[in-house]
Amino acid sequence: MSSSPSAQPSQDQLATKAQAWSALFSEPMSDLVKRYTSSVFFDKRLWQADIAGSLAHAEMLAAQGIIGAQDHAAIQRGMATITQEIESGAFEWKLDLEDVHLNIEARLTQLVGDAGKRLHTGRSRNDQVATDVRLWLRGEIDLIADLLTELQRSLVDVAEQNVDVILPGFTHLQVAQPVSFAHHMLAYVEMFARDAERMQDVRRRTNVLPLGSAALAGTTYPLDRERVARTLGMEGVCQNSLDAVSDRDFAIEFTAAASLCMVHVSRLSEELIIWMSQNFGFIRIADRFTTGSSIMPQKKNPDVPELARGKTGRVVGHLMGLITLMKGQPLAYNKDNQEDKEPLFDTVDTLKDTLRIFAEMVGGQPDPATGKKEGGITVNPQAMEQAAQKGYATATDLADYLVKKGLPFRDAHETVAHAVKAATSHGVDLSELPLTVLQGFHPAIEKDVFDALSLRGSLNARNTLGGTAPAQVRTQLARHRARLG
Amino acid sequence: MSSSPSAQPSQDQLATKAQAWSALFSEPMSDLVKRYTSSVFFDKRLWQADIAGSLAHAEMLAAQGIIGAQDHAAIQRGMATITQEIESGAFEWKLDLEDVHLNIEARLTQLVGDAGKRLHTGRSRNDQVATDVRLWLRGEIDLIADLLTELQRSLVDVAEQNVDVILPGFTHLQVAQPVSFAHHMLAYVEMFARDAERMQDVRRRTNVLPLGSAALAGTTYPLDRERVARTLGMEGVCQNSLDAVSDRDFAIEFTAAASLCMVHVSRLSEELIIWMSQNFGFIRIADRFTTGSSIMPQKKNPDVPELARGKTGRVVGHLMGLITLMKGQPLAYNKDNQEDKEPLFDTVDTLKDTLRIFAEMVGGQPDPATGKKEGGITVNPQAMEQAAQKGYATATDLADYLVKKGLPFRDAHETVAHAVKAATSHGVDLSELPLTVLQGFHPAIEKDVFDALSLRGSLNARNTLGGTAPAQVRTQLARHRARLG
Amino acid sequence: MSSSPSAQPSQDQLATKAQAWSALFSEPMSDLVKRYTSSVFFDKRLWQADIAGSLAHAEMLAAQGIIGAQDHAAIQRGMATITQEIESGAFEWKLDLEDVHLNIEARLTQLVGDAGKRLHTGRSRNDQVATDVRLWLRGEIDLIADLLTELQRSLVDVAEQNVDVILPGFTHLQVAQPVSFAHHMLAYVEMFARDAERMQDVRRRTNVLPLGSAALAGTTYPLDRERVARTLGMEGVCQNSLDAVSDRDFAIEFTAAASLCMVHVSRLSEELIIWMSQNFGFIRIADRFTTGSSIMPQKKNPDVPELARGKTGRVVGHLMGLITLMKGQPLAYNKDNQEDKEPLFDTVDTLKDTLRIFAEMVGGQPDPATGKKEGGITVNPQAMEQAAQKGYATATDLADYLVKKGLPFRDAHETVAHAVKAATSHGVDLSELPLTVLQGFHPAIEKDVFDALSLRGSLNARNTLGGTAPAQVRTQLARHRARLG
Amino acid sequence: MSSSPSAQPSQDQLATKAQAWSALFSEPMSDLVKRYTSSVFFDKRLWQADIAGSLAHAEMLAAQGIIGAQDHAAIQRGMATITQEIESGAFEWKLDLEDVHLNIEARLTQLVGDAGKRLHTGRSRNDQVATDVRLWLRGEIDLIADLLTELQRSLVDVAEQNVDVILPGFTHLQVAQPVSFAHHMLAYVEMFARDAERMQDVRRRTNVLPLGSAALAGTTYPLDRERVARTLGMEGVCQNSLDAVSDRDFAIEFTAAASLCMVHVSRLSEELIIWMSQNFGFIRIADRFTTGSSIMPQKKNPDVPELARGKTGRVVGHLMGLITLMKGQPLAYNKDNQEDKEPLFDTVDTLKDTLRIFAEMVGGQPDPATGKKEGGITVNPQAMEQAAQKGYATATDLADYLVKKGLPFRDAHETVAHAVKAATSHGVDLSELPLTVLQGFHPAIEKDVFDALSLRGSLNARNTLGGTAPAQVRTQLARHRARLG
Repeated sequence: MSSSPSAQPSQDQLATKAQAWSALFSEPMSDLVKRYTSSVFFDKRLWQADIAGSLAHAEMLAAQGIIGAQDHAAIQRGMATITQEIESGAFEWKLDLEDVHLNIEARLTQLVGDAGKRLHTGRSRNDQVATDVRLWLRGEIDLIADLLTELQRSLVDVAEQNVDVILPGFTHLQVAQPVSFAHHMLAYVEMFARDAERMQDVRRRTNVLPLGSAALAGTTYPLDRERVARTLGMEGVCQNSLDAVSDRDFAIEFTAAASLCMVHVSRLSEELIIWMSQNFGFIRIADRFTTGSSIMPQKKNPDVPELARGKTGRVVGHLMGLITLMKGQPLAYNKDNQEDKEPLFDTVDTLKDTLRIFAEMVGGQPDPATGKKEGGITVNPQAMEQAAQKGYATATDLADYLVKKGLPFRDAHETVAHAVKAATSHGVDLSELPLTVLQGFHPAIEKDVFDALSLRGSLNARNTLGGTAPAQVRTQLARHRARLG
Repeated sequence: MSSSPSAQPSQDQLATKAQAWSALFSEPMSDLVKRYTSSVFFDKRLWQADIAGSLAHAEMLAAQGIIGAQDHAAIQRGMATITQEIESGAFEWKLDLEDVHLNIEARLTQLVGDAGKRLHTGRSRNDQVATDVRLWLRGEIDLIADLLTELQRSLVDVAEQNVDVILPGFTHLQVAQPVSFAHHMLAYVEMFARDAERMQDVRRRTNVLPLGSAALAGTTYPLDRERVARTLGMEGVCQNSLDAVSDRDFAIEFTAAASLCMVHVSRLSEELIIWMSQNFGFIRIADRFTTGSSIMPQKKNPDVPELARGKTGRVVGHLMGLITLMKGQPLAYNKDNQEDKEPLFDTVDTLKDTLRIFAEMVGGQPDPATGKKEGGITVNPQAMEQAAQKGYATATDLADYLVKKGLPFRDAHETVAHAVKAATSHGVDLSELPLTVLQGFHPAIEKDVFDALSLRGSLNARNTLGGTAPAQVRTQLARHRARLG
Repeated sequence: MSSSPSAQPSQDQLATKAQAWSALFSEPMSDLVKRYTSSVFFDKRLWQADIAGSLAHAEMLAAQGIIGAQDHAAIQRGMATITQEIESGAFEWKLDLEDVHLNIEARLTQLVGDAGKRLHTGRSRNDQVATDVRLWLRGEIDLIADLLTELQRSLVDVAEQNVDVILPGFTHLQVAQPVSFAHHMLAYVEMFARDAERMQDVRRRTNVLPLGSAALAGTTYPLDRERVARTLGMEGVCQNSLDAVSDRDFAIEFTAAASLCMVHVSRLSEELIIWMSQNFGFIRIADRFTTGSSIMPQKKNPDVPELARGKTGRVVGHLMGLITLMKGQPLAYNKDNQEDKEPLFDTVDTLKDTLRIFAEMVGGQPDPATGKKEGGITVNPQAMEQAAQKGYATATDLADYLVKKGLPFRDAHETVAHAVKAATSHGVDLSELPLTVLQGFHPAIEKDVFDALSLRGSLNARNTLGGTAPAQVRTQLARHRARLG
Repeated sequence: MSSSPSAQPSQDQLATKAQAWSALFSEPMSDLVKRYTSSVFFDKRLWQADIAGSLAHAEMLAAQGIIGAQDHAAIQRGMATITQEIESGAFEWKLDLEDVHLNIEARLTQLVGDAGKRLHTGRSRNDQVATDVRLWLRGEIDLIADLLTELQRSLVDVAEQNVDVILPGFTHLQVAQPVSFAHHMLAYVEMFARDAERMQDVRRRTNVLPLGSAALAGTTYPLDRERVARTLGMEGVCQNSLDAVSDRDFAIEFTAAASLCMVHVSRLSEELIIWMSQNFGFIRIADRFTTGSSIMPQKKNPDVPELARGKTGRVVGHLMGLITLMKGQPLAYNKDNQEDKEPLFDTVDTLKDTLRIFAEMVGGQPDPATGKKEGGITVNPQAMEQAAQKGYATATDLADYLVKKGLPFRDAHETVAHAVKAATSHGVDLSELPLTVLQGFHPAIEKDVFDALSLRGSLNARNTLGGTAPAQVRTQLARHRARLG
């Protein structure tokens, strides 16, 4: 049967969102309300996912005989045109059409008529938007995975060049024990490796298809949802339609993983900032990551690490916002959920920018001529070693030395505390105390004690799995290189 | 002496931010870094505050003889031009110039030469940005105060029309006692009145001048900071330069006050949504605040209250982001602080939009012809009263009745529980039990018990200060009318 | 050599924590500081993990020849005594000994002398506490996994009994489409299944051994860390000592997973509360999960769902607290980290209590006589079905009916909107409109339309994967039964 | 009339909470539910407020003739006994009686019979608990106000002794300009003064009486609520009963103020920790605020500042928890609100402990013999001044010098950048460049430039209101002394 009499009005019907449900509605939306409720100006970034989802849906509708081959071809043709229009900037996004989905569908119907109107068969915006966000986020997670690999590689690069550089290891920001600077860098590689692993877990739970759940209850059309999932490269199909349209776990889980990653960035930033402070002077970062002052002519400020530390708050705020958003919502879809997008989008943007800039700031950029990376952080080994010589960094080594001579650890610990007290009062390091003085603290001390008391002796001695001895660090470097490709 | 030889280069110097501190810097900022660190695309909204602050500063510099009258006049002239350019959209904002402050200063110098370069005497971007944000926020707080008044007026309007409408008062979402619908509306007036009070407290602490603190330590020029404060209408001067440039308390305090206000909005929204659900059917909101469904033709969804409930998460997220931002920062200014702006701006925008739309949704809009407000919420008194008759809403009245007959309250409470149990098993209300049956629970019960058991009797009886009796509600309405003007 | 001369003092040395590092310290800790910094009153719950970790460490020390077999035996003997003392309540926890670790070690040294002092060889409190928390949390995750299974089983139990019960499915809390009550319950099963999956991911990242990382840099003793990991059933060894002692990712990731789980609980709670409200009356929960009112004799309040909804805030607060804690901390261990425990402990307690009480509240408890579960939620199918008949829940079915007759979906949607408008104005359901009236909206409508317009017809029609048709729901029930055992 | 027949059962009725509403309830609460829903183990700390509120209520009931003088006397007598019992530890708190309110009321009824049962006339637990929490919090705010004063005094004490000590002022943790150490301390005084002001604002909004609002709607008894408010020293009466029982704004506002205060503590802590790190060595704190290491004998760690920094997360988490708790709750009282107490209590405890310990750590303790404070932070002026000489801290002074010679500020800034670049390449400070070299950068430079380039010259020059010049600092010290008493 022909639907032509009603086709014309309904084409116009989609021209503005207010009219989309006009039969029931006695007044148009006010401009204030439109602005408050519309999402097109931020959700239009979902356009590729939206079109991909629609094409997969249409393909399945045709395969199942729900729409005809001609309608399917028309939809494909229309979507190709729309893709071109959006990419070229010619597409006219309309606030009146509320969101990316209605904008694209309205244009499709304009272009191909009834076929466009048949596309929405067996789906709803509720499952459509859930599908789009999942598809889009999956792609972003893959980009983030690459950036996490890049950043790890940069850290490994710096580590490889600094295996034998001695840094004062801190606990409580007090000098504790000497560590290899490479070892310190690799601590961050561990963190970002965990972040990458978490991102894969999020990806797995994100990459599941809600489409076909329709508004909330499934649909009366004989859809083949698993076919759509396969077409879209998704690992499975949401098994409950009510859950499918109202679930935003993946957005929260992603933002939680991003928050942890930003916490790691904030810790690295804090260290870079401290290390660049004049009293440390351990490292420098390239000028292009710093700024000056409008008043103080001598300033070169570590803007990028500071901003990154600050942006941690931003991402954490988004996590809290999303959790607050979902708390206490009854099933199934509620409009509250539209508020999931901006925090999610900004989290993705912030994380990607931060990882990219940190990969470059730490490891440098390839020189176009040589292909070699240049301009990463510059290490000042002298300043680090000098700092390591403060604070009796090898006191534990003296205690361990005494244990090897037979003392219980707790007694050795106390003996060394006395020695440190004496050395402090003379303003010297333990290694600067004469042998006879050391022997006054315990008769078991012999000449070989000075090997234990040297920074390098201390470093080399921590030669167990995960320890800071250069041999261990090189083993880890090899493992990371193999892993990161 | 003439500074002309160096004047030309430094005019160019401000042309790009990278060059602003070029003498010390060996490479320009990369585009990625520029994008990461620049703020001009969100902080340009501070332009009016920035110009007002600069004009007040210049006026004082001239009054103190630090700059000449001609320079002062040139600055005024330049700023007038810039104001025009920005208002007309002709002003060219440059990413390279990083922020609103450098964009305006660079243009000023282009327009008026050396005088523009003299404007920055005795100040730094650190105190300048703190001043701008405070001035801007003060203005926004005043707008918010007006919107809070508007919303309270709308609630009072609705209340005035519904003093005698009986709503089932809930605790635990279980029917508790009958209340006047007006009384319920006025509960929200109390909340928004507290919000308004808090906003005034925030305003007081915001409206204090950092300018003259320079980078962190004050300045060597004989500034008259109190003069600048007076010019700008500020209540005082920050008394410690280190604190002045690093303090963001006012931003956090404002966002906390905004979060509380949004929590109140979320509670009202939750109620509106429940009241509109078919099983309640207590109210309707105008169609222009609702939307339909792309799949379900019968739908009219309360989008605006839902979105507002969702946006609570957004504002709360900003609060958490700002606190995380400031936690653990050493003095004085750090670049992290630049991240204060976007959450603050978005909090202001979200709060203003929400208050404005709620004022209209609750109270309606003035009809252009009559000036009378129309289109606010529509109340269904029958549905409310019918619901109030469920759930034994007057059981407490029966207990109170027994107390007045001499029973201790606890015994009366237990007696009524037995009566409710019996009524429940017969599927009737307490008022539907015959007198003889009621007397079986306690012999003191007489015929006048049915007055106590009626909804209206119950309502009228709660006639103490703050209670729901219409007489009390009218007293409160008069108080609010007087207060809100 | 003999260490006996110093043994006695150092035994005392551990008697109070202040003296544990006394040689360097010129004054004891004040009581206020002790209270502020001590953790023993909350971390003593780690005692089993602490002893298990110590025994595994001692076993390895002996196997590696770092301590003698006699020392090993003495440590085992001592720990057996301590276990007994703690279990019997005879163990005296001392604030002066700061934490669970020093309390146990001091007691061990009291009991077995030098062997006890040798236990700490090659480890530090930094890696010890990290190990203890991970071991403890792993055990708790296993308990939580069981509780999540229990809760899912309860939901499946209720679902099985209510496959054919029709609930009005809501979107925006507006009646949308009829759904099976079982289908609704299974939506929560999906959520808790995801929670369980996330918990397994957290477990995997938690179950890795920090021990052997010592203070921050590894140790000089030839430890076999992989042996310790195997003994403790851990899946691997932390590969970087600096990361190992400062990482609290697992605590944050666990709390994030717990927050999501509580968000699901809050959504279920919200629905239970709404469904119990008199205007819904869809369900009842057993009296033992409700409370009355001190003033209103008729009240039966859903305290447990309300508290659970409230406790969501508590867990989310802990997540925020933990992230704020770690933000911006430099490596390696800082005392801030001690603040990880209370939020983590309270999150575990809250989550376990909530899951346990919900499993029982939803599904009931086994009757001791019959073994059959009793006392779970009571469903009122009449109230649900009656509510489903409001709100034109089958309007979409009419649209789908028209699509099957050849209309494009968008046109069918608009046609039905007109029909709904007409039905509303007559105060009847669509199914109550005469056929001729329906045909007025579209001539394709025939007598079979009334099958589509019935609630049960609508339900049965949504027969695609994940849809609400009873056949689909039964398939899902079988899947869950198989999965949950 | 006599109520004796039912009096006996109802006395028992209060013996357990489950029985308190037994007539309607078919089963007792399970132990798990009791534990989950009871609050007595944390809310018993409200007992003084609860008794004070009850006595004021009873006094008013008697004055209004609602209860007799004998009943009033009996209640007073009973409460005196209960006070004694609680203070002596003899009072038996019962989990079965759920909360502090029912525990006390049940005991009162046991002691004085019917009079006890009459106490609850005209009130509900909903308004009772709201009143108790407000009364309790008001008292705690007063204690916190005192502690904030103490901490400010300690900071002022340290400041007074260090007006002429030169610290390198940092921005971006890069040396910026020299500041007086006293000036730096006074920046924190400003912050804590704002905190104190905010606490007064919270106090004002907390100190308002909900009592008399009963369950939600007011009461049928002729209460004189303003009399109760006067008796309790409250500033006013909640004007809307629905709002009165459901409002928790004051708890959130208090926790927000506490969070800001902890953010200030975290900033101070961060600085103390950095300043104590060996590469800074600017200060020491007394040994009793530090701890050692179980493995590293040389360690003296700043545990107290680190823990305080960490506890910021705890308080911020409570704020987030409370906001999440209230978000989206419908009116009036819901059981969720019970979850307000633990975060509020822990916030108060944490804040009080932290302020107390910081006051002592910064300013020391009075020596019992001399009354003079001893043991506060120890300042190392040499280390500070030496650090200030790095980083070209007087570069701005050179720019200002040139401005005074007639250069526009922007040109002077650029000129100095060139000078700094040259000095850096020679590894010397600006003040170490020969006059002729300096004149090469600008001919206006004369011999008096070296005054500007000295640290002390720079310090003294910043002599505007709020600046770091010792003269300004002394003015501020006098102001604070006058203010703090």
